[in-house]
Amino acid sequence: MDTKLQGYIDRLNRLNFKAMYEGDFFLTWEKTDDEIEAVFTVADALRHMRENNISVKVFESGLGISLFRDNSTRTRFSFASACNLLGLEVRDLDEGKSQIAHGETVRETANMISFMADVIGIRDDMYIGKGNKYMHDVVNAVTQGYKAGVLEQKPTLVNLQCDIDHPTQCMADMLHVINTFGGGENLKGKKVAMTWAYSPSYGKPLSVPQGVIGLMTRFGMDVVLAHPEGYEVMPEVEQVAIANAKASGGSFSKTSSMAEAFRDADIVYPKSWAPFAAMEKRTDLYGKGDFDGIKALEKELLAQNATHKDWCCTEELMSTTKDGKALYLHCLPADISGVSCVDGEVSESVFDRYRDPLYKQASYKPYIIAAMIFLAKQQDPAATLRALAEANVPRHLK
Amino acid sequence: MDTKLQGYIDRLNRLNFKAMYEGDFFLTWEKTDDEIEAVFTVADALRHMRENNISVKVFESGLGISLFRDNSTRTRFSFASACNLLGLEVRDLDEGKSQIAHGETVRETANMISFMADVIGIRDDMYIGKGNKYMHDVVNAVTQGYKAGVLEQKPTLVNLQCDIDHPTQCMADMLHVINTFGGGENLKGKKVAMTWAYSPSYGKPLSVPQGVIGLMTRFGMDVVLAHPEGYEVMPEVEQVAIANAKASGGSFSKTSSMAEAFRDADIVYPKSWAPFAAMEKRTDLYGKGDFDGIKALEKELLAQNATHKDWCCTEELMSTTKDGKALYLHCLPADISGVSCVDGEVSESVFDRYRDPLYKQASYKPYIIAAMIFLAKQQDPAATLRALAEANVPRHLK
Amino acid sequence: MDTKLQGYIDRLNRLNFKAMYEGDFFLTWEKTDDEIEAVFTVADALRHMRENNISVKVFESGLGISLFRDNSTRTRFSFASACNLLGLEVRDLDEGKSQIAHGETVRETANMISFMADVIGIRDDMYIGKGNKYMHDVVNAVTQGYKAGVLEQKPTLVNLQCDIDHPTQCMADMLHVINTFGGGENLKGKKVAMTWAYSPSYGKPLSVPQGVIGLMTRFGMDVVLAHPEGYEVMPEVEQVAIANAKASGGSFSKTSSMAEAFRDADIVYPKSWAPFAAMEKRTDLYGKGDFDGIKALEKELLAQNATHKDWCCTEELMSTTKDGKALYLHCLPADISGVSCVDGEVSESVFDRYRDPLYKQASYKPYIIAAMIFLAKQQDPAATLRALAEANVPRHLK
Repeated sequence: MDTKLQGYIDRLNRLNFKAMYEGDFFLTWEKTDDEIEAVFTVADALRHMRENNISVKVFESGLGISLFRDNSTRTRFSFASACNLLGLEVRDLDEGKSQIAHGETVRETANMISFMADVIGIRDDMYIGKGNKYMHDVVNAVTQGYKAGVLEQKPTLVNLQCDIDHPTQCMADMLHVINTFGGGENLKGKKVAMTWAYSPSYGKPLSVPQGVIGLMTRFGMDVVLAHPEGYEVMPEVEQVAIANAKASGGSFSKTSSMAEAFRDADIVYPKSWAPFAAMEKRTDLYGKGDFDGIKALEKELLAQNATHKDWCCTEELMSTTKDGKALYLHCLPADISGVSCVDGEVSESVFDRYRDPLYKQASYKPYIIAAMIFLAKQQDPAATLRALAEANVPRHLK
Repeated sequence: MDTKLQGYIDRLNRLNFKAMYEGDFFLTWEKTDDEIEAVFTVADALRHMRENNISVKVFESGLGISLFRDNSTRTRFSFASACNLLGLEVRDLDEGKSQIAHGETVRETANMISFMADVIGIRDDMYIGKGNKYMHDVVNAVTQGYKAGVLEQKPTLVNLQCDIDHPTQCMADMLHVINTFGGGENLKGKKVAMTWAYSPSYGKPLSVPQGVIGLMTRFGMDVVLAHPEGYEVMPEVEQVAIANAKASGGSFSKTSSMAEAFRDADIVYPKSWAPFAAMEKRTDLYGKGDFDGIKALEKELLAQNATHKDWCCTEELMSTTKDGKALYLHCLPADISGVSCVDGEVSESVFDRYRDPLYKQASYKPYIIAAMIFLAKQQDPAATLRALAEANVPRHLK
Repeated sequence: MDTKLQGYIDRLNRLNFKAMYEGDFFLTWEKTDDEIEAVFTVADALRHMRENNISVKVFESGLGISLFRDNSTRTRFSFASACNLLGLEVRDLDEGKSQIAHGETVRETANMISFMADVIGIRDDMYIGKGNKYMHDVVNAVTQGYKAGVLEQKPTLVNLQCDIDHPTQCMADMLHVINTFGGGENLKGKKVAMTWAYSPSYGKPLSVPQGVIGLMTRFGMDVVLAHPEGYEVMPEVEQVAIANAKASGGSFSKTSSMAEAFRDADIVYPKSWAPFAAMEKRTDLYGKGDFDGIKALEKELLAQNATHKDWCCTEELMSTTKDGKALYLHCLPADISGVSCVDGEVSESVFDRYRDPLYKQASYKPYIIAAMIFLAKQQDPAATLRALAEANVPRHLK
């Protein structure tokens, strides 16, 4: 056993995360601090073992079901990688190719795809009030199916982005921050700017800014949420951020000035999102089938949007951050001015300078997902890690 | 070795199913009683082993190829689950994304996808006289390819629904019946009502009712086929049912009254299907490219269909069954009155009451498919089960 | 260790292919003769081991990413088979379902799909000057990602067909030739006719004829390239063929007569392709978005094409080959006169006579791909083969 891995196991043994066993992962703020730290610890341990060519395949067979109700590359391949690493084969539920009857209940579909599913990963971020609810419906259905003897196991749900949170993204972001700053203990008092930025596209989900303020406020940092008037996020999540900041000894504040948010920031996360109130309105219009209303709303939002092209992460703004060297974060793909659009979220030179760290940030996601699965499926995760290390089966027989 | 598993192995050792080795599974009535019982026995054994966390992965590598020429959720995930359980990775042949030349022969395509295929699963149920024939063409092609040294192995075909039978569905249904009634020996004299039911949709395949009367008549039960005039199934399959009933000491009869079929029934299977004669006509029209003719036929069928809305599995009808408690079966998804349509195959309260048993019924399908593969691929299936139990590799290293 | 396998290992030990380790496979003529022979040797060894039920699974987990920018059946299933054989799960990047932003760089996408990718296989053959370049961009991106610590491993690229070469196809073709003639040492002085043939379809890639003349000229054979005037291939590849022929003691010549090419040929490869100059023009028009220009060009090409219907591989032509028995090759699917089209590349009776050898030819592709991966991923491939043979894990526990 190498000392690094021993360190991860020792850390796990100091944490209480018993409630995660046979559980699900919906929102980060439904988890305790110990549980969040357990995810980071297992993610680091799994990465370390893979880097050292130690197989962590705990499943001989089994399926990981994915359902993407919105396009995805990064999360799709991250989920596939995580499942494969642990020994699960991914099967995607393509609702277009499936015989899901008009009016078929979630309860039925959820059971029909889960006969041998150990994990279900869902992205459903398009409509406010829908995605997270849908995930709970699925979990309730398979729990019932498991109790009724339909399923031999209760699949674990991993939220791959809902209308409220994007936990696999934000925890990958956070683990990148922790490792960049040399450990969670070095984060107290650091300033994080989660700021809106202009993009010509319309209606990007709110789950990233919400997930970031709901998670990063737990580490004693000073988290500032910045956006133009009218781009508010869900008030419930702001309440979470306020409570978190209080508990962790940090702070949570809001501003409508990007410059103010960037000033002396240690970490910046400039990113476009749609106004919460407008997204709620859109969901209502969609519910009524009012497609003319949706078009009118879209036009209005684009006009409103276009008045904020100055919200861009430029070199000038970056130079105002702590020593001019804040860590720049983005969930990718970014809208880069002059590359993917005329005016975007970030200038080309800033993006280029941070390209390697941005990709590194993204590279934590498969391990975060694998850790969530591992903690839900292993009764004693520390013991399993030790057993895997001792078995020392090479991932690749070189 | 636990006694339950020992029981399955003992039962296998009493049966003669040698001819299944390196064979295929097209229609249940092409198999002997011993072969049918072997499938049920292996399915139960595999399920029992999975429940007890014993890996039954007999393949280190290998592919299971699926080809769905009609939408599917349940069968798609059942096939994927079965292959995965045994160690085969599923690759779907998406005819849209493939370079299958206009006029390319089945013989060529079948070989080109089978280089490392141990199993091929096909659903092709849309046209009378086509699906089963296509499956035979595929088997002939890969048999020839195997003999010519093109393929290192002859893939086993599993019929995932053709124009004649739906063997994986009907055997799952039957295993559910057997286990619900505490064993095949308790089925003699039980009354089964396979009845047509109204659905607003048009042209559902005949393979389920045909498969049910072709299989359930083998267990000494009294099988009644009920449908409105004009909804006849294939006459050849009725002949099979008659011969089966005679051999098994049961009976096969027909009626045009749903009430008569339900009276004192132990098991009811109310389900919509299209008239055989009309489906044959549609196939001819399709062959001639007469799309106006198809439209006219569809209109006519929908009008005919609409006169039978009273064929619905209501609480009232259910109360006329044996003790008012017949086992309600459906292959799912069902058309539920007031849920997925105004008038459907079953009333909401009946469906809701049977939801858990219905899902349990569906949950046998992956094991039935796995058993079919196992019996075709293992030279001595009982010996393999014993070896797997003794190796006792955990499916999930908990 | 059986003597056949020992023979393969001994042969490997005489060859120098060190540079293949952690490398990629773009074009056959970028590889040395020893490297090409190593691919054939490992392909034969892997096939031999699979035939003898010895698992060659060197990966416990890991992904093989495929990206098909053109339709594919044979290569798609060959890649899936090769990855599965070695223990890698295939995930297809479906650019339609992915969130690949407008203007997103190849560098970003390549890294985002490669977190746990050991192999990337790409088909990109549609536009001259694009496909091979794209593959290099991908390799440069993941190499950079690996160096920056984003990726734990550098995925190996396998060219599954580009605008210049189709190495997995042509090496499968060549291994079929070698094994048909009883070894590479029997090929000196054999005549190969790589000839254009008529097909009603428009714009088939040039990568097969180019790949064939770029590879088959390395074995001391007399390679003749035949096509009507105006159907020239890339001049750079002809230069490769000339240099190869010189080095190997064979010859490379051109003719505009199919009859001349076939006369006394030992091997014939009649196949349609589009004129290089026209394909280059089409790429330019596409770049300018000139779709009217593309339509006009297509019309012109089809008219030009229609004047060459006499370029068909008939029985009469076949009878002029060496003893009337040349080995007929095709990458499939072929356009067969009277089967898939009125006038095609080959007459039905010729094609039918060669069906088994043609399928055998195709069956080498999975092993060629697996060998390319094996040589890039195993530090000492001969030692790994020996270790696998000694471990003797059954591929299928029969």
